[in-house]
Amino acid sequence: MAACLRFTQRVWKSFIDNKGHDARCFPNLNISHARPGIVMASLQIEPYNVNRVGTVHGGLITSLTDTLGSLAVATHGQYMTGVSTDISTTFVKPAGKPGDVLHMTARLEGIGKSLAYTRVDFTNSEGVILAYGTHTKYVGKSVGHKHDLKFSLDGETVVGGKEVTERE
Amino acid sequence: MAACLRFTQRVWKSFIDNKGHDARCFPNLNISHARPGIVMASLQIEPYNVNRVGTVHGGLITSLTDTLGSLAVATHGQYMTGVSTDISTTFVKPAGKPGDVLHMTARLEGIGKSLAYTRVDFTNSEGVILAYGTHTKYVGKSVGHKHDLKFSLDGETVVGGKEVTERE
Amino acid sequence: MAACLRFTQRVWKSFIDNKGHDARCFPNLNISHARPGIVMASLQIEPYNVNRVGTVHGGLITSLTDTLGSLAVATHGQYMTGVSTDISTTFVKPAGKPGDVLHMTARLEGIGKSLAYTRVDFTNSEGVILAYGTHTKYVGKSVGHKHDLKFSLDGETVVGGKEVTERE
Amino acid sequence: MAACLRFTQRVWKSFIDNKGHDARCFPNLNISHARPGIVMASLQIEPYNVNRVGTVHGGLITSLTDTLGSLAVATHGQYMTGVSTDISTTFVKPAGKPGDVLHMTARLEGIGKSLAYTRVDFTNSEGVILAYGTHTKYVGKSVGHKHDLKFSLDGETVVGGKEVTERE
Repeated sequence: MAACLRFTQRVWKSFIDNKGHDARCFPNLNISHARPGIVMASLQIEPYNVNRVGTVHGGLITSLTDTLGSLAVATHGQYMTGVSTDISTTFVKPAGKPGDVLHMTARLEGIGKSLAYTRVDFTNSEGVILAYGTHTKYVGKSVGHKHDLKFSLDGETVVGGKEVTERE
Repeated sequence: MAACLRFTQRVWKSFIDNKGHDARCFPNLNISHARPGIVMASLQIEPYNVNRVGTVHGGLITSLTDTLGSLAVATHGQYMTGVSTDISTTFVKPAGKPGDVLHMTARLEGIGKSLAYTRVDFTNSEGVILAYGTHTKYVGKSVGHKHDLKFSLDGETVVGGKEVTERE
Repeated sequence: MAACLRFTQRVWKSFIDNKGHDARCFPNLNISHARPGIVMASLQIEPYNVNRVGTVHGGLITSLTDTLGSLAVATHGQYMTGVSTDISTTFVKPAGKPGDVLHMTARLEGIGKSLAYTRVDFTNSEGVILAYGTHTKYVGKSVGHKHDLKFSLDGETVVGGKEVTERE
Repeated sequence: MAACLRFTQRVWKSFIDNKGHDARCFPNLNISHARPGIVMASLQIEPYNVNRVGTVHGGLITSLTDTLGSLAVATHGQYMTGVSTDISTTFVKPAGKPGDVLHMTARLEGIGKSLAYTRVDFTNSEGVILAYGTHTKYVGKSVGHKHDLKFSLDGETVVGGKEVTERE
């Protein structure tokens, strides 16, 4: 597995370890690809993800916009991913019902010493766009964690920092 | 209890009856006031509402922006509250940790035959603003449900439609 | 010139004919490509486009998000492009100074009987992303103008409606 | 005139002195009230402020959301007002036509060492809400200008810094 994907999955694991909102809403999020600047994931919709008319709740999409944007920052090798300033989500079509699979691609559009800019696209299994979001984060205090890494451009290898092994 | 509050609580109950995202994230939402155009609620933060650093997850705030905006539409007497087009949330301060109480005020800023415009403010128990959101909905197919009511301006009484009693 | 580009330029011309905000802010907008669902344009930054520190004013970018989103609706063959419900813009980097050229790509992400969803990306001449925006429109009363056309998928030819010639 | 209003008007004057976007779009903006955290202004709509159907262009509203949010930062005594990260505007009703007066109230909802959060409400002369916006700014490099002041809570007097007189 590519180093960047391994790292992003580790960050995701740290998101759900304390049984908070991520674990509550989408514990089975499947992160399939990650290289610096981009992460792809999918989620099979569960009955607890819907609104009263039985389709995906907007709050699931906005929550995923939050979390996927953070994981896009993680692909940059940052273990800590900052705090949100603005999250905006637009809903193009109903986003599915239990059993359907929701696909997400999150991109890190820019990152500096203070701010990180991310966008997330949501599609169904046919590739039709369902929703999209933007998530801007303040990362001024997030750089320099001992777990931070630097990846090759293709995300395959670690070129800076020391990778934590699974057993640590 | 005022008719508008009773109705808004009924709509909220319909949100959580099918054990979806609302019931998953904030089953204990307490709707304390409602009159046409405004609804106030509070939520005691639970351990499952947080992010990995132990404070309220942004996704909880965005989900509440979604749901409270819908309830603001409900205060207008609409049992069905439309579909979201855009939800945007801005995070001013960390929004608390388990045990803290989050306070929300949602306003219906405008409603026509097709669109409803809502805003939600989040404050802590001292009244300090923590976050705010906007939630625009398409309501073109939402009017005319058999449960729809019309309230007096102060929300105290039903002036149109037939109220469903608790036992129905 | 492709039919869709010709039509989109005609719609743009109608935007500036009454000497309003578009003509005031970016009369020289150059629409270079258009096919159903996508429009590309560029603008050479003028001294009247900047803020007090001499770089592109955020209001220019938000105004272009508005106008380009509308032109993305026009690529669908709609002469009238609806009314805005929500416009959101994120600023990744300073967007240039007088003499620089700003490049835009606007996409129509979805359109139905009531709503149209558009996004706009802003890049510099090196292709670096500077900003991006979303623009959601209500188009429920916009369909059916006598100038409406239907284009082939590639935008090359008119397959429905009657094209107005330049002299009309 | 209150010190805070005098200062905010001075900042506004610096916005239009270089004949950029502000001077182009709303040179006659009238800033009527300012105290720390809030600024009120009005604008008589001109023919160059409209869209092709003769009503206020969305880009005017988004541009004012940008500029008024910056002026809300200025009410805090900051001469430099930072750079925008996210601007979002929601359009509730048509915002008027030439001759009408647009009223704006901008609030500084929070400000720290790095970020400033502002909101702007737009109303007509009858107080009906027409639009509202949010504008988040990065102000990490904006503090410490020689013109910075500190005002009394009511904005009436300068309690820190040295006020520049009109003739300087």
